[in-house]
Amino acid sequence: MAEQMVTQDLAHFQAQCAVGDVPEAVRHEGKRSLLNFFATALAGHRDPFIGQALSVLQPLSGPARATVIGHGARVDVLTAAVLNGASANAHEFDDTHFPTVIHPTAPVAGALFAWAEHQPTRGADLLHAFVLGVDATCRIGNAVSPAHYRRGWHITATCGVFGAAAGIAKVHGLDATRTAWALGNAAVQSSSLVESLGSASKSIGVGNAARNGALAAMMAAAGVDGADRAIEGTRGFIPVTSDSPDPGAVTRDLGTVWEIQHNTYKPSPCGVVLFPVIDGCLALRKQVAADKIAHVIVSGHVLLGERTDRPGITNGREAKVSLQHTAAVVFLFGTAGLKEYEDACVADPAVRALAAKVSYRQDPAIAVEGCAIEVTTTDGKTLTERVPHWRGSLENPLSDADLEAKLRTLAAEAAPWVDPGRLIEAVWALDKAPDAGALVRLTVAR
Amino acid sequence: MAEQMVTQDLAHFQAQCAVGDVPEAVRHEGKRSLLNFFATALAGHRDPFIGQALSVLQPLSGPARATVIGHGARVDVLTAAVLNGASANAHEFDDTHFPTVIHPTAPVAGALFAWAEHQPTRGADLLHAFVLGVDATCRIGNAVSPAHYRRGWHITATCGVFGAAAGIAKVHGLDATRTAWALGNAAVQSSSLVESLGSASKSIGVGNAARNGALAAMMAAAGVDGADRAIEGTRGFIPVTSDSPDPGAVTRDLGTVWEIQHNTYKPSPCGVVLFPVIDGCLALRKQVAADKIAHVIVSGHVLLGERTDRPGITNGREAKVSLQHTAAVVFLFGTAGLKEYEDACVADPAVRALAAKVSYRQDPAIAVEGCAIEVTTTDGKTLTERVPHWRGSLENPLSDADLEAKLRTLAAEAAPWVDPGRLIEAVWALDKAPDAGALVRLTVAR
Repeated sequence: MAEQMVTQDLAHFQAQCAVGDVPEAVRHEGKRSLLNFFATALAGHRDPFIGQALSVLQPLSGPARATVIGHGARVDVLTAAVLNGASANAHEFDDTHFPTVIHPTAPVAGALFAWAEHQPTRGADLLHAFVLGVDATCRIGNAVSPAHYRRGWHITATCGVFGAAAGIAKVHGLDATRTAWALGNAAVQSSSLVESLGSASKSIGVGNAARNGALAAMMAAAGVDGADRAIEGTRGFIPVTSDSPDPGAVTRDLGTVWEIQHNTYKPSPCGVVLFPVIDGCLALRKQVAADKIAHVIVSGHVLLGERTDRPGITNGREAKVSLQHTAAVVFLFGTAGLKEYEDACVADPAVRALAAKVSYRQDPAIAVEGCAIEVTTTDGKTLTERVPHWRGSLENPLSDADLEAKLRTLAAEAAPWVDPGRLIEAVWALDKAPDAGALVRLTVAR
Repeated sequence: MAEQMVTQDLAHFQAQCAVGDVPEAVRHEGKRSLLNFFATALAGHRDPFIGQALSVLQPLSGPARATVIGHGARVDVLTAAVLNGASANAHEFDDTHFPTVIHPTAPVAGALFAWAEHQPTRGADLLHAFVLGVDATCRIGNAVSPAHYRRGWHITATCGVFGAAAGIAKVHGLDATRTAWALGNAAVQSSSLVESLGSASKSIGVGNAARNGALAAMMAAAGVDGADRAIEGTRGFIPVTSDSPDPGAVTRDLGTVWEIQHNTYKPSPCGVVLFPVIDGCLALRKQVAADKIAHVIVSGHVLLGERTDRPGITNGREAKVSLQHTAAVVFLFGTAGLKEYEDACVADPAVRALAAKVSYRQDPAIAVEGCAIEVTTTDGKTLTERVPHWRGSLENPLSDADLEAKLRTLAAEAAPWVDPGRLIEAVWALDKAPDAGALVRLTVAR
């Protein structure tokens, strides 16, 4: 077998890839990911982490050229990258590259939109760099999966830093040599642990992936070289962080298979395995009122039970992984959005009473993407609903209109000063925009 | 076995430990480490990385309150931490915690001296925080060694970030809860790979350890919480990054054994295993002139051969791990300092000619800390020298006077504007200094 030169080959591809090399469908998926990015960043800018991080970083910020999405504070490019990356991922409502469970957009777009206000950037160039950055992130993720995440690496951050580096290398116009250095400079900054999930430190990890990726590329531009084989070398990223290394996955079908086409978008800010439960309860809700429900049995894959069979929860964080809570709010309110996963909703006596009537049953015949729900009514009837694929999966993706609606809903809840129609239109027209930074400024109060 | 709460227990110890709890000998070792820090940072500030990194970071810097040691540029606290951490380690001439091969001072002191100009800090408080930060770094290093470094983690950076966080938490006055958050916020930023050694990206890793440790503590002060069991949890730092985990090592004999007492200092900027070779050649040089040498055989441990049996090298980087080059320069010039490991010295015909007469012979009877050297002279005599422990080892440590001389030599070479006597005196008197930041300003031209 010829020795693989993954770092160099990936850098060469990234540096030479032109806008015209990317199929229109791939570019469209890029825009869909960015619609979802603005939706979740608008929701996330109110997360307490953003204010806390700003209180530390704003007094240390250099020239205030870049905007914190939704929030409106202006800070330097690297600080904006931290905050925009973190806010897009804050509620775990951002996109999911299904093969790896990476949330690829937060680090890459977090860095690129900060850059677009730092240096004038055409929309077409930003979109192109974004698609390439997501591709680099997910390809490197494929090469270390599944052992990497399973061991405890927070793969969104650990792989996202490479994508942010690749994206900024592209808009910065780096050649193949310096793009390889950018990837090497990203490798030494790749970090964050699954243990951090549930604490605010998770947001440092994801925000840093955006910031440090940008820094990696800027350092490469200034002449700081990385290791020749930073990704695949014996003491490089893949062998060190994975017990199931597949370095060939980084460059396999490069330019033919685009990883952004394996990206999915969440209809609700909860665990993915709960999505079919939401769909099933929504369908049944048309046939039975919440106050007529005697009992609900949710049947599904063993993982559904392991991760979400949680009665008697006490806060919104647990609610996001509770099938009892999720079924109850859908029957009661017809939706499972941000509000339905806040502490106040968990404390609502009506929610608690209905959640107490919901139970889980393992069914080995049902795949993890689906579920079956059986409702027994107070007058003794039985209603059933079967969901083969959750809405938002690769097989049953959110439509463009669904993504627009998600942005409208989150903007209305978290950033009512935003004109969602203008922002949506601007994302769809990104490849024609002379100044990509203008999009960011549509997210803040004037 | 009771469940270990390593993160919380370490944080509690760090937060409650008072200056009076630390023995005088430990504090003295802290000052020795800091003397060595200023010596190597003065040498390292001329490394190309510092200028390259400044070209990126200075235009993005916030309030210019902190000084880049030796260089004199003034930048914000986090930027100064990056640069001072990186310069102290640039030439691999800094200290070595022998059990783990961590260079502990660069990240911890890099952060603390940046902090001392950001917020007024008494010398006694800085020294105390420094000793505690080194202790945290090396204890966490003990817990992941030896598998961690062997797998490819650049342990100086991966563990240094915890020590920088602990040190800044201490001078920031954080309580036990927030100190634990600081450690958790460090865990998500722990990074860098052995693959990077030999490229400039190594300096990003070490510099970031200082910066990101400081950031971790500042974020904790602002309310950003880390994971409760960030260090020892199932998906926490120790299990994820080590196949030889020993979490108990973090807290074993805490407050009784001080890891800074296992710190060593290099007499030369080359691989540690070459130190006995230098000592032996220095002794023989008194008996034979370089031009009378016909042949040199260096006998030693298998590791000496594996790492340094390198004839015919072509640059300074290789010279640092070449016993042929090292023996040649010592016989010719009576020293093996920074200049003797520059490219120009490698190209010197006299050095190349003498290096060609040096060979290695494995001797299983000799420990890695020693060597035996046999010189055959042009008139047929044989001279031998045996070195049991290299100078600079724990068994044969550099004296205070040796460390002062090292600082004088490096200051004269790299920063002739420095008054080394004043700087040396200021380090020895650090615990009486009202303003620790004043030391940094002794390193720059006025």
